[in-house]
Parts: sequence; C-alpha cells; structure tokens
Amino acid sequence: MTDFYVPKWEEIEDGVYEIAKKMVEDGFIPDAIVAILTGGVIPAKLLSDLLDIDVIKYVDIKFYRGVKKHQEKPVIKAIYAEDLENKKVLIIDDVADTGETLEAGQNVISMLGPELIKTATIYVKPWSRKFPDYYFKSIDKWIIFPWDKWDVIRENPEAPVDKKEKFFELNNKLKSKSR
Amino acid sequence: MTDFYVPKWEEIEDGVYEIAKKMVEDGFIPDAIVAILTGGVIPAKLLSDLLDIDVIKYVDIKFYRGVKKHQEKPVIKAIYAEDLENKKVLIIDDVADTGETLEAGQNVISMLGPELIKTATIYVKPWSRKFPDYYFKSIDKWIIFPWDKWDVIRENPEAPVDKKEKFFELNNKLKSKSR
Amino acid sequence: MTDFYVPKWEEIEDGVYEIAKKMVEDGFIPDAIVAILTGGVIPAKLLSDLLDIDVIKYVDIKFYRGVKKHQEKPVIKAIYAEDLENKKVLIIDDVADTGETLEAGQNVISMLGPELIKTATIYVKPWSRKFPDYYFKSIDKWIIFPWDKWDVIRENPEAPVDKKEKFFELNNKLKSKSR
Amino acid sequence: MTDFYVPKWEEIEDGVYEIAKKMVEDGFIPDAIVAILTGGVIPAKLLSDLLDIDVIKYVDIKFYRGVKKHQEKPVIKAIYAEDLENKKVLIIDDVADTGETLEAGQNVISMLGPELIKTATIYVKPWSRKFPDYYFKSIDKWIIFPWDKWDVIRENPEAPVDKKEKFFELNNKLKSKSR
Repeated sequence: MTDFYVPKWEEIEDGVYEIAKKMVEDGFIPDAIVAILTGGVIPAKLLSDLLDIDVIKYVDIKFYRGVKKHQEKPVIKAIYAEDLENKKVLIIDDVADTGETLEAGQNVISMLGPELIKTATIYVKPWSRKFPDYYFKSIDKWIIFPWDKWDVIRENPEAPVDKKEKFFELNNKLKSKSR
Repeated sequence: MTDFYVPKWEEIEDGVYEIAKKMVEDGFIPDAIVAILTGGVIPAKLLSDLLDIDVIKYVDIKFYRGVKKHQEKPVIKAIYAEDLENKKVLIIDDVADTGETLEAGQNVISMLGPELIKTATIYVKPWSRKFPDYYFKSIDKWIIFPWDKWDVIRENPEAPVDKKEKFFELNNKLKSKSR
Repeated sequence: MTDFYVPKWEEIEDGVYEIAKKMVEDGFIPDAIVAILTGGVIPAKLLSDLLDIDVIKYVDIKFYRGVKKHQEKPVIKAIYAEDLENKKVLIIDDVADTGETLEAGQNVISMLGPELIKTATIYVKPWSRKFPDYYFKSIDKWIIFPWDKWDVIRENPEAPVDKKEKFFELNNKLKSKSR
Repeated sequence: MTDFYVPKWEEIEDGVYEIAKKMVEDGFIPDAIVAILTGGVIPAKLLSDLLDIDVIKYVDIKFYRGVKKHQEKPVIKAIYAEDLENKKVLIIDDVADTGETLEAGQNVISMLGPELIKTATIYVKPWSRKFPDYYFKSIDKWIIFPWDKWDVIRENPEAPVDKKEKFFELNNKLKSKSR
C-alpha cells in the first residue's frame, strides 16, 4: 500500500514562506525566478508575491513521475527564458524526487550566463541525488499537491483527497464527450 | 474607503470547478490552455489538472492594475506559445477588469491559426467591456487573490488579509538587505 | 509559360543597400529588425550588417506560396521576439506577394507595444494589397531567390537556375537515402 | 598586418553544397537545423533549401569575436527551439573559431532530448578546440563573410572589401542622424 502525503494550501503557503525567510536571511534575493513547468508555477508565483520579484521565466521539462515508475531522463521541451545574463536566479519546482529535473533546469539556465543560480523546492524526497539549496520539508511519501490531485485520483481513485465525488461526476461527463 | 473581496483557496478551487463544469456541459474541451502571465498561471494549472489537459502555453502581458489607476493599454512582453494551429484553445486569467488584457491575449492567439478560442476568468468586474465566455462570479470590489495578496498589502497595509504580521516581519528584513 | 525573375546575390546586396539608404534618408534607424521566417532572415542579416543594428528577432509565419496555388491565410507558428516595447522596429521579408504575410507580422508585432513599425521587402508584386514602407523593385514575375532556388527547381526543373546538374546529382542521392 | 580571407557568395554556396554532399553520403539527413544566431542563419537557410529541410530553429549565442580580443565565454541569450525530442539535429554556424560557441550550442540542444546531434560550419580555424562534424575548409586568416563585412569595415576600414565607397557614404549619413 502506498503512503500518501496530502498538504493543504495553508501548508503550501507556509512552506513558501519558510523558503523565502531562509533566502532573505542568507541575503539571497533573486533578480528572476525560473519556474519548472508545470509543477513549479504555483510555488514561483507565491514566492514572487512574497518577495516582490516581478521577473518569472519558465523551463518546460517533462519527466514521467508516478508511484512505480520506470526511470527516464528529463527532457527539456522548451525554454521560455531570455536575458538572464549576470542575474541572480532562483530555479523552483514543487518537489525534488530524483533531483534530475532540477539538475536539468540548473544545467540549462547556467548556460544563459547568470551571476548565480540557486534552487528551491517545497518538498524533497530523502533519496534525491540532488538537494535544492532551499526546501521546506523532506517527505518520503507520495506527495499529492493541490494542483495535481485530480491527475493522481484519475489513476489512483483510492487516494485520500477531499471532494472526490464532485470530481468523479465531472470526470464521467468529460469522458462521455468526444474531444 | 475601498471595498475588498478576499477569496480563500477553497473558493478559487470551487470557481475553477464551476468553469470546468460549464465547459464540459458545452462540449468545449480545449486542446491547449493559454495562461495570461502571471495572474492566469494558477487558474490554468488547476483547470488543466481537473480536465486532464496537458498543453499549457503562456502569454506575458503587462497592464498596470490597482485601486486608483490611470488607464494604460496592455502590452505583450513575450509569447511563449507555438503550434496552436487548428487547436481548440482556452485563454485564462484570474480576473477580467477592463477586459482589455483578455482581448489582447485573444487577438494575439487568434493569429496562431487556432480552430477556436474561448476565454475564461474566475471573476469579472461588472464594468468590463468584454466578458469572458466562462467565469465564476461578477464582483465589483477589489479582489485580493491568494497569489497577489502581499503585493496588495505592500501598498495597502490596511487590507483585510490574514497573517499580515508574519509578512511584515519578512518584508522588513527584505527591505534591510541590499539587493 | 511562367516567367521567372532570378536575381543574383549582387542584386540582393544592391537591393538591401537601396532600402538602407532610403531608411537613413528618412531618419528611420530601427532599434530592432524582425525577420519574417524564413524568407526574411537573409535580408535581415544583410541590413543589420549595413546599418549596425544588433537586435534581430523572428516571427515564424507559414504561407503556402507558389505559381498557381489556392490562396490561404498566413498562420503564425511562433513568435521569437520579446521586449520590443517603445522600440522602433523594422519588419522585413524577401517579397510582398499578396502582402498578407507582412500584414500578419505587423499585426502581431504591433501588440508588443513598439513606438513605431515600418516594413520592408526587397521586391513587391504589383498586385500586393499592402506595399511595404521600403522596397527595392516591383516585379510581376515569379522571383527565384538565391535562398529558395532548389525548392523551386524541385517542383519546376525547367526553371532557369545555374548549376542545376550539381543539384540534381545531390538530390538523387538524397532521395535514395531513407530519412 | 592582419591577413584577411574574403569569400564570395559563390564560394559560400559551394561550401554549403560540399557540406550537404558529405551529409548525404553519410546518410545523415537531419529532421531539423538549428542556426547559431546570427552567423549561422545564412548557412542554415541555404542548407535547408538544398536538402529540403523545413524545420529551422535558432539559438542566440553572444561571443565577442575579433582579431585581437580578450577571450570570453559564450553566453546563450535565448533559445528559440522546441520539440526536438527524438529528432536528428544539425547545429550550424558560419565559422568555428575557438569552437566554444558550437560547443555551447551543442550542450544546450543536447538537453532537448534529440536522437542525434551533428555540427557544421563553413570554415574552421585550425586552432579550434572543437572541430565540427562537417565543414568546408580550414582557414587560418580572419574571415570576412558577405554578411558581416560592413561590421568589419567599420572597425578596420583598410580591409579588402569591394564597394567600400558606397558603404562609407551610407555610414557617414547614418552617423549624422541621431538615433
């Protein structure tokens, strides 16, 4: 049986706050945030609000992630980032699982000539090969984020998520429509 | 005195759910979601999770928005979208205030040869010149989203947002650090 | 029988020179050149060299072009241009045939908030609905550019292009290889 | 005294032809060409015409290049390339001088998950640390391309380039206009 960890929005906000606090204590105030798509967009937006950073860029990285997964390499689909030369950059994602996605993001952004790159994720898995510079908690369970819960439920209907009935109702209608 | 409307995350999720439901009832299941940066990224991510749409693109549009604002035109900073030819596209933002941002997004995406474009925002202001095809509620107050609350508080410290003390503590440290 | 017009590189250089000269006489020195892909890249590069303009951006527009073709609308595939706000911009292509490609380029770039947009092509067809602000010559024949001659020859082996034998030799080898 | 090498357009075309021929003989027919901006755009366009490859992407890499310069690292300004996963890719530039620009291009494109990457330049300097997979000639002089001759002349008015008087006339007018 899989163990799930299901943070609420309040915990997400607390996690982003703690990351921001550590960054400020370190004196690391980035000029730009680069969000790993698509898991990093919500942490990126919340952090940019908290630290008043108005440059957010994006790197689209695909990596098959699941409970029992066959490991693949992350592949960069597109890089929506320019003019990071001599900038202090924070790369952010929701979780570092193997650490490879973050590493791929760091590798590609390092070629854009930034002054400094640091990395952050809200959670990190204890077995991750690479730990981000900033993170909130280490969690060894399968994390179900508020922004990917329905994706999890679609494959794992038993997972402990609220308001599943409403979702199933919608999902059934969705399946009955031809795309 | 300004009237504020401060939706909680639960209301945001409900709003996205209602939009998704109307779309499914209409038989409109987009092939791609285009998020207006940066207000649209969180609604876009939540909707993509709910409707299992894995193509999210981005249009960076800047438009000064505030309580007492001098009206300016929206300007497109960058278009992180390709290959939308013959696709059904939903453009999404958090709120339609004047409607001009949404209109600019629609104008630029229409040039990419999509089969169909529809628009959605969680809220709409009653005075908006353009109403989106899908929205959750019409609100005539200043909406403080969970993802731009600190930006509002920075300029309007009296606004009714929770945990302001924690934010002020962080913000004071931030101001004391040289960037 | 189709009439062809086959400018040599020297005429291309002369054409770009004449366009540059008119621009300088008008006092129009753009901050950025936007090349329509892919016909505009060579004129753009030559003009940027002549006028010392080091910002070149790109708009990928597809439009089926040929002798007797069923006319279609131009579709923008991708926009590789950012930060043109308050800039003087020249949009350049090799030829204005119907004028629609140039018009699509102008429409999309106008949304990026430039101070001023002007357009240029080396040649223009007399029947073009839109004439560029700058052009070298009006030509009513099918123009075979040095950079699309083999594309023309592939479909029209009788067209008057030099060194066709060398090309056919290569093309036959190419067809014999599986991609 | 600096030795210059000033190829004419005909030699450029021959060079691209020879590169194309070697590629076809090797059975390497790329699915996509990636041009290093801006030196690679003209070779890329000519090669795409010759080999009928209609996908051209771009990587904007800046590297100060000249006769007596202090060597710096190449910096990637922007990556206008997407969806190269499982594709055969040719990266092309006009010249490999130190080889570092090509290497940076190869490093960044390799992260996009291509099946295979090969590199080509028309010329290579004998001291280049990295030789491209395909090139036309090794040249130990300062190469003045038809597309950067005026840039060279601006700093080195003695360089052996045709029609300098016409250029100086234009350049003087240009300098007399305020931008």
